[in-house]
Amino acid sequence: MNQRPIQGTVYGVILNDAASVQALGDLNAAPYKGAPKAPVLYIKPANTWAASGAVVGLPRGAPSAEVAATVGLVLGRPAARVPVADALACVRGLVLAADLSLPHASYYRPAIREKCWDSSLVLGAMQPLVDVAGLTLVTEVNGQPVDSRSLADLLRPPAQLLAEVSQWMTLQAGDVLLVGVRYQAPQAPAGSRLRISTSGLGSVEFTLAAGGQA
Amino acid sequence: MNQRPIQGTVYGVILNDAASVQALGDLNAAPYKGAPKAPVLYIKPANTWAASGAVVGLPRGAPSAEVAATVGLVLGRPAARVPVADALACVRGLVLAADLSLPHASYYRPAIREKCWDSSLVLGAMQPLVDVAGLTLVTEVNGQPVDSRSLADLLRPPAQLLAEVSQWMTLQAGDVLLVGVRYQAPQAPAGSRLRISTSGLGSVEFTLAAGGQA
Repeated sequence: MNQRPIQGTVYGVILNDAASVQALGDLNAAPYKGAPKAPVLYIKPANTWAASGAVVGLPRGAPSAEVAATVGLVLGRPAARVPVADALACVRGLVLAADLSLPHASYYRPAIREKCWDSSLVLGAMQPLVDVAGLTLVTEVNGQPVDSRSLADLLRPPAQLLAEVSQWMTLQAGDVLLVGVRYQAPQAPAGSRLRISTSGLGSVEFTLAAGGQA
Repeated sequence: MNQRPIQGTVYGVILNDAASVQALGDLNAAPYKGAPKAPVLYIKPANTWAASGAVVGLPRGAPSAEVAATVGLVLGRPAARVPVADALACVRGLVLAADLSLPHASYYRPAIREKCWDSSLVLGAMQPLVDVAGLTLVTEVNGQPVDSRSLADLLRPPAQLLAEVSQWMTLQAGDVLLVGVRYQAPQAPAGSRLRISTSGLGSVEFTLAAGGQA
């Protein structure tokens, strides 16, 4: 997929909701030595972008994927060192996203292999910006709801997240900042039909296919 | 910088030389539990790209940066699941690169903050592809050589690295794959003039400036 207006870099963030921080357990133990003091980001490069309706091939040898429902902020103008109060003025709209990973036990290495395989980010069409705290994302596997996630418990809501990230990294128009995935999102095996929906942002649908990739 | 032909995603790899693996110590201990079986990648997104001659502002509060000299493979055609023997046919040329990071003690979290600040990848002009095993990269700080690094000891030479990465990730024309940075590259404080050079690939030069970024 390379349809405008998404055309730059897509950034995601982990540990941005209270439930995930709690689920991960004792962040004060080694090696973390405390909860993250800054947004913990990852990148989903262009090879991962897929549109709703995609058939997503799992990497070879991977029986299933973790499917995290989230929402992305689509930048409409550059954001560099913006204060919280001005951050949302840089956002042009929202996209619903299914952010796929291979299950991996730790964050001990950069998880590019687990997070950046082809078509592992299924993106919906851009929608007008709304307050994400009012959104609930429902994930269905083969027509059955398996997960429901409210975005009301983000530790860094969109304006704060964007403001903090923009302190050390300039985001450009067309870049996307995903507001956060749940730790241990639902898993689905090859052959599953997936659907993520939320009122107001529509839905994304895709099929997981057995792996042709290594 | 957005000058063609680099226009996609820039990927880097750590632990791709024998000296770095040795310097990092016992990779069989927890949490690593063994040397990496696949290339350990990171991403340098477009906000990091700078051209030779740049003034690179350090993030606020950072007194110095680690300056890793490396070389990037510039893709000239898509690479998806290519065998080693065909990998270099996807490469259009090489770029000399100064890959800047903030010193960080561990790889325990995705190091986006430490690796992806604005202008933290200074790239030279594209040069024809040569065998990188014959290249030695010299780093100078304020006119004094501080480091000399041969690319003869890459654990995965360019063809093998590109072939392995392309097994799970499609690289596009315009993408760049850096062949690897040394663990614990030289550090330089704000105010330093840096130069990285190698015969045949020219040089990149830049100045480190005290931090205006958070």
